Amino acid sequence: MSRSRRLLAEGLGTAALLAIVVGSGIMGERLAQGNAAIALLANAAATGAGLYVLIALLAPISGAHFNPLVTCLVAACREISVTDMLGYVVVQIAGAIIGVLFAHAMFDLPLLQFSTHARTGSGQWLSEIVATAGLLATILIGSQTRPRSLPALIGAYIFAAYWFTASTSFANPAVTLARALTDTFAGIRPQDVPGFVLAQCAATILVVAAARSLRAHGPTAPAAGRNV
Amino acid sequence: MSRSRRLLAEGLGTAALLAIVVGSGIMGERLAQGNAAIALLANAAATGAGLYVLIALLAPISGAHFNPLVTCLVAACREISVTDMLGYVVVQIAGAIIGVLFAHAMFDLPLLQFSTHARTGSGQWLSEIVATAGLLATILIGSQTRPRSLPALIGAYIFAAYWFTASTSFANPAVTLARALTDTFAGIRPQDVPGFVLAQCAATILVVAAARSLRAHGPTAPAAGRNV
Amino acid sequence: MSRSRRLLAEGLGTAALLAIVVGSGIMGERLAQGNAAIALLANAAATGAGLYVLIALLAPISGAHFNPLVTCLVAACREISVTDMLGYVVVQIAGAIIGVLFAHAMFDLPLLQFSTHARTGSGQWLSEIVATAGLLATILIGSQTRPRSLPALIGAYIFAAYWFTASTSFANPAVTLARALTDTFAGIRPQDVPGFVLAQCAATILVVAAARSLRAHGPTAPAAGRNV
Amino acid sequence: MSRSRRLLAEGLGTAALLAIVVGSGIMGERLAQGNAAIALLANAAATGAGLYVLIALLAPISGAHFNPLVTCLVAACREISVTDMLGYVVVQIAGAIIGVLFAHAMFDLPLLQFSTHARTGSGQWLSEIVATAGLLATILIGSQTRPRSLPALIGAYIFAAYWFTASTSFANPAVTLARALTDTFAGIRPQDVPGFVLAQCAATILVVAAARSLRAHGPTAPAAGRNV
Repeated sequence: MSRSRRLLAEGLGTAALLAIVVGSGIMGERLAQGNAAIALLANAAATGAGLYVLIALLAPISGAHFNPLVTCLVAACREISVTDMLGYVVVQIAGAIIGVLFAHAMFDLPLLQFSTHARTGSGQWLSEIVATAGLLATILIGSQTRPRSLPALIGAYIFAAYWFTASTSFANPAVTLARALTDTFAGIRPQDVPGFVLAQCAATILVVAAARSLRAHGPTAPAAGRNV
Repeated sequence: MSRSRRLLAEGLGTAALLAIVVGSGIMGERLAQGNAAIALLANAAATGAGLYVLIALLAPISGAHFNPLVTCLVAACREISVTDMLGYVVVQIAGAIIGVLFAHAMFDLPLLQFSTHARTGSGQWLSEIVATAGLLATILIGSQTRPRSLPALIGAYIFAAYWFTASTSFANPAVTLARALTDTFAGIRPQDVPGFVLAQCAATILVVAAARSLRAHGPTAPAAGRNV
Repeated sequence: MSRSRRLLAEGLGTAALLAIVVGSGIMGERLAQGNAAIALLANAAATGAGLYVLIALLAPISGAHFNPLVTCLVAACREISVTDMLGYVVVQIAGAIIGVLFAHAMFDLPLLQFSTHARTGSGQWLSEIVATAGLLATILIGSQTRPRSLPALIGAYIFAAYWFTASTSFANPAVTLARALTDTFAGIRPQDVPGFVLAQCAATILVVAAARSLRAHGPTAPAAGRNV
Repeated sequence: MSRSRRLLAEGLGTAALLAIVVGSGIMGERLAQGNAAIALLANAAATGAGLYVLIALLAPISGAHFNPLVTCLVAACREISVTDMLGYVVVQIAGAIIGVLFAHAMFDLPLLQFSTHARTGSGQWLSEIVATAGLLATILIGSQTRPRSLPALIGAYIFAAYWFTASTSFANPAVTLARALTDTFAGIRPQDVPGFVLAQCAATILVVAAARSLRAHGPTAPAAGRNV
């Protein structure tokens, strides 16, 4: 697959992901009459179903990372080059922002917005650490043991993580950045972005360290550590 | 498979699809006490589950298009003849209308109705472009990379698209036409039908052009473009 | 598999099915604060998930009919004997009643009840014809084209059918009879049982006639008609 | 796989399971404005999706029991040693408690709590007997007939069992013990724990006896009894 094709797939996929996350949040909030549980149920189910479809379709083309941390992890395993890694991160961020703009346009909202939704504090940061570690562990272990089921596994994981973490699981710096640009259900205040991104990076370092330690000390390499 | 059998499958499948879309909308609206988010959640989940079943059952017989745009796309790939294409479109429209009548009969409503549900404006039209492009891309790419999962992929896509687009994703001219004939949850005013259908056709042209361009310029043909 | 083992599986499975249908209805009604859409969403999702599990587990033992009409269809195809057919129907009815008693015992309700939930009229009867015809068609076609997916197909079908029919899809005489014995969410008045059962039997005759006609007139036997 | 690796997987998996059960319960209760049906729907769907992921990922490493009764069953089949069994039970209980603490920390709640949620009486105990017997039967039969689908089967079973039993299906002594340590949606009063655990153990004895009897008396060993 040529590089331009892979970058196109990665950008389109991330744009679609953000349109789904932000759009379904707007629709849920509009219809739910203030009952945020119903809005989050729709938001989580639409995101999980959308991720299942996007990963199933685009993984054969670009790997379907849609997430700079996943791209870094894959680059650390030397499965893609550093040049590719930088290209992926750029199109992921650009795609994520374009996806938010599309959601706004579809719902007749101002294209450019800044969120006023406060998401900060130690509980939220711990939530992002847990959410990101869980996502990366799902990818690392699942790609070894059930590669064909990975789209369904990641969709189901994110659905659950929307509910069991206090932050509703951003787990992705490109997604976090783009969601600062929407003052709707899925938004996050720009000043809260650095805390989330730091927590997500900390979780990635933790997962890489754990995988390396498991590989180094085990009498046999665990399935999850083989590629790290 | 003989032509009459294929036309029968296509007509029955489209009728069942519309009975599901309109019927579950009526049931949701009746029970949800005005909370449209719960009604849409039920409507979207029933439609997604129903599409999964209908495509899994009928794809081996007729291809399970249930959608004139999908039929045109398949005819453009020369996989069915022009005569077949015309037959498919006729039974899809007839089946869609019959499905709406069945939904009305099951819920003891007047058989013949015209919707008063306004669905118009640039946000709605952009939504239909996005929804239709996403549906066709799912079919084109998915039939190359995960043909066995296509029923689940399309069901999951439509579930998500009900939520992330402002129009709740009609993405189908036969469905749009038939939904003008019900003054219930899933309806669309007759005068709003042309805008929706034009947006759906524009999306189809866009997808075909994109697939051809990807095929022409790539060093290797992308999975998604091979058949267009 | 010995006959006693098959009868045991069929009886236990039908009992479990009714405990799920009636129990989840009670739980939904108790918690939903009068919003019947939320109760039906939980009831339909629990029933769909439960059917998926029960059919996946018990189909290799007894065929997992849980439904006298399915048993008659299978007997008409000469896949089981008439003696077996009678045994199946008896344990299905007995199992269904036992399942209702278990649901009542779990929720601390009087074991013996009679429903006061009116379900009658032409819309309801047409709903049962549609629901039953859809279920039998799903089984007939699905067992030819996707036998491994049959548990998921039937679970998804019943989830959708709870929503798109006005009767919430009983589609099963043993289930209908047993649900007359519970004055809770899932109940049906004893005097309304005959209308439902007649509609279900009419749908079965229709499906058998359609399958035979397709087999007789087709140049090649359709997948769906091969066994009827 | 080395023993330390298996114990790590079992402990981490049980911790994740409890974080999901308790965390999604807290989120559901916070957002649902007192409508417990919506909270339970989110709680059940998150738990089902989470179990599907955890079992798919960790079964190849430790078997993914997360439940002392499953571990005892496996030990009774002589598939793991008594030493292993004791180790598993210790890490399951420790992991379960750690998972609850994580849920509290993520939602900024006091780490150490005792539940005040009364769950007692014959209906609740019968519910736990039914829920546990159903879970063990799903594992025993499913691991024979559909081993690859076991993660989805158990996730779907638990989703249904949250709804059709009056106790919302604990079905696991480690989970029950840990849920006494949270005064949130998923909690159970410490004094109600023994009743639940006794009911769960009674169900296990029942299932083992039934499986042995089926194996002893059948002309051919039933799929479900082969390993017990």
